[in-house]
Amino acid sequence: MKEIQSTKNTVIKETKKLQQKKYRQQTQTYLLEGFHLIQEAKAANVLLKEVFINQRGLNEWTEWIEENLEEYYLVSDEVLKTLASQPTPQGIIAVAEMPKEDTADFTGAWLLLDNVQDPGNVGTMIRTADAAGFSGVILGQGSADLYNPKTLRSTQGSLYHLSVNAGDLAEIIPQFQQTDSPVLGTALDKTAKDYLSVEKMSDFALVMGNEGQGISPELLAMTDQNLYIPIKGQAESLNVAIAAGVLMFHLLK
Amino acid sequence: MKEIQSTKNTVIKETKKLQQKKYRQQTQTYLLEGFHLIQEAKAANVLLKEVFINQRGLNEWTEWIEENLEEYYLVSDEVLKTLASQPTPQGIIAVAEMPKEDTADFTGAWLLLDNVQDPGNVGTMIRTADAAGFSGVILGQGSADLYNPKTLRSTQGSLYHLSVNAGDLAEIIPQFQQTDSPVLGTALDKTAKDYLSVEKMSDFALVMGNEGQGISPELLAMTDQNLYIPIKGQAESLNVAIAAGVLMFHLLK
Repeated sequence: MKEIQSTKNTVIKETKKLQQKKYRQQTQTYLLEGFHLIQEAKAANVLLKEVFINQRGLNEWTEWIEENLEEYYLVSDEVLKTLASQPTPQGIIAVAEMPKEDTADFTGAWLLLDNVQDPGNVGTMIRTADAAGFSGVILGQGSADLYNPKTLRSTQGSLYHLSVNAGDLAEIIPQFQQTDSPVLGTALDKTAKDYLSVEKMSDFALVMGNEGQGISPELLAMTDQNLYIPIKGQAESLNVAIAAGVLMFHLLK
Repeated sequence: MKEIQSTKNTVIKETKKLQQKKYRQQTQTYLLEGFHLIQEAKAANVLLKEVFINQRGLNEWTEWIEENLEEYYLVSDEVLKTLASQPTPQGIIAVAEMPKEDTADFTGAWLLLDNVQDPGNVGTMIRTADAAGFSGVILGQGSADLYNPKTLRSTQGSLYHLSVNAGDLAEIIPQFQQTDSPVLGTALDKTAKDYLSVEKMSDFALVMGNEGQGISPELLAMTDQNLYIPIKGQAESLNVAIAAGVLMFHLLK
């Protein structure tokens, strides 16, 4: 155990750079905040390259720390705050290693996100996909970064329970179709089919689109079937994560 | 049209107080930000007591403003910013009047929120209840304030489409039961019933609980039936707004 009191320490200055996506990509590492996410990461054998804990965190989680961490930094509250994305951080922040590219086979149910921009929505959809029994999530172009602190927080650790990859959906959709997994889009127009009239399935891909614009016309034209959720009240639309939740729980056998 | 350039102007200083719940309750008014919400309020005949617009907003929405507003303040960007909850506000903010207490009859489907604390969750659930065809939402004790800017934003205007009231759920649940509307709780324990085994209904109340603790034991004991959503993956739970969405769309006939 080493101690760091100053936010000007080189290790802290370097670590703080991971708040930017550019540095996360360069180093293939990211910041993980709070005990719950760090426990989940550890349980999934994610490599934690550095761990920063303040005195309060150390007192509260002594046992877990002793059993799970070989090395860590004891840092001042100020140091922890400078690394954290939230004004009142929990007592622990780690630098975690991104997984190697996953060579997933596309069996089971998959959620494909086209340009879903809000990190909270993306994280919540990963959490919901996990709970619904999906095999994986693919973050298409324009979607929020998985390693954004708000995305990570919203997943509640589900990113460690199923396959989550970034990819170009225009290339990935045909791969599903080659394996006879239907690709279902979501649309608000009249050519789409009421989701309730679709039978439950085991192997398929569900595409959800941008919060304002929905799925891009180009991808919408590639799907096998487009679905809609009938809206009964006066709401113009559903939040994309809610729509995804309703569809995922309805569709998966 | 009057102009206000300074954030020290008395009208602005008074209006800014509405960022606090205490002043909203005293005056029975609240701040409404952005064109979409203000249009929805106007369409629902909500009284807008004051409207503040900057030059950009005025240029962009000239026609709507001329047709809908008798009076408004043209304000500097700085003034608009001091009233807004977001760092880059849209060009318009209004002071709106709260509705009188609603003497709702409890027919149809109702969503009851017990201590749901996140404003985004509460707002999203109101929006989803609207889309699912629910008659109203009751915000029980401890739930986020409807007039918190984040709640309002997340409703996307749905608060003007159905009945939304605050109330004591321990008093309200028996009122539903007196009219033969079953009250359905949500629980994670084994005594609860799989939601898929429940028939669709027209008149009922669905209670959703706190993000961490769920429904309070006291209310859980008052319900007619408690439901759960089977979780297939490794997620510990669903986000409360997602769970509410899945249940509302499944249950309402």
